[in-house]
Amino acid sequence: MLKRDYDNQVCSIARSLEVIGERWTMLILRDCFVGVRRFDDFQRSLGIARNVLSTRLQRLVDAGILEKRAYEERPVRYEYRLTAKGKDLWPVLMTLSQWGDRYESEAGAPWVFEHRGCGGQVDAHLCCDRCGEPLDPRKLERKPGPGYESIKAA
Amino acid sequence: MLKRDYDNQVCSIARSLEVIGERWTMLILRDCFVGVRRFDDFQRSLGIARNVLSTRLQRLVDAGILEKRAYEERPVRYEYRLTAKGKDLWPVLMTLSQWGDRYESEAGAPWVFEHRGCGGQVDAHLCCDRCGEPLDPRKLERKPGPGYESIKAA
Repeated sequence: MLKRDYDNQVCSIARSLEVIGERWTMLILRDCFVGVRRFDDFQRSLGIARNVLSTRLQRLVDAGILEKRAYEERPVRYEYRLTAKGKDLWPVLMTLSQWGDRYESEAGAPWVFEHRGCGGQVDAHLCCDRCGEPLDPRKLERKPGPGYESIKAA
Repeated sequence: MLKRDYDNQVCSIARSLEVIGERWTMLILRDCFVGVRRFDDFQRSLGIARNVLSTRLQRLVDAGILEKRAYEERPVRYEYRLTAKGKDLWPVLMTLSQWGDRYESEAGAPWVFEHRGCGGQVDAHLCCDRCGEPLDPRKLERKPGPGYESIKAA
């Protein structure tokens, strides 16, 4: 965890990074979203050291992002599946992917994601939940939220 | 850069992480979005070693995410501003922030972002660009994109 270093960063971006900001963690999550569940499959897909993979998976389980379930009894074998908290990371990975498609993929997107049965693609514009207008940072005003004081006091 | 390790990862998430996945980089970008521009202000805000900050800023400049501009002539002093490529990282940071608000902020969101003049908040649901339906991973089909072959061949 990056906790000690990011501790004085009063913001939910820093708090999220404490949990998923470690090297390889986002790529493990990406694999989860495309259906990878078993240790050996993660290892093959990522090509990282087994001890690093093992540590990362356990931290994701500890953080409530992945759930470890036995899928075989003799011998006991486990698989890792996204919890609801883990599934809610999907917009982070999708917006990261779209940015990479746009700016870091000279030959074009290596993968496209289509709305099944419709053929549309994911629109990464974030809109206002009240009026529906597409937003950007200049249209936003940052204000202290309900958790501001308790964190300042900590 | 994380390039060497992530090289065999054929995906735009890995490519994005090569550029912005380093420790502290996302927090530097967060600061940029709330108006921090000068070295000493980043340093005060983040509390990291000056040499680390200096390296991270330079990499962001090299990657075309920040632009370094002189704002004073004698002595020459520089500020760092987001380019269009950098500004397009906003949805990544916003979705990361919302996830942290939801799952890692027991006392509630430390900051809220309101649509100026409207009061609405950012809706982080990603929708279909054709039919407008809110999407989630189960509704998507992953297919090789235009950049798939060139990468496999590399």
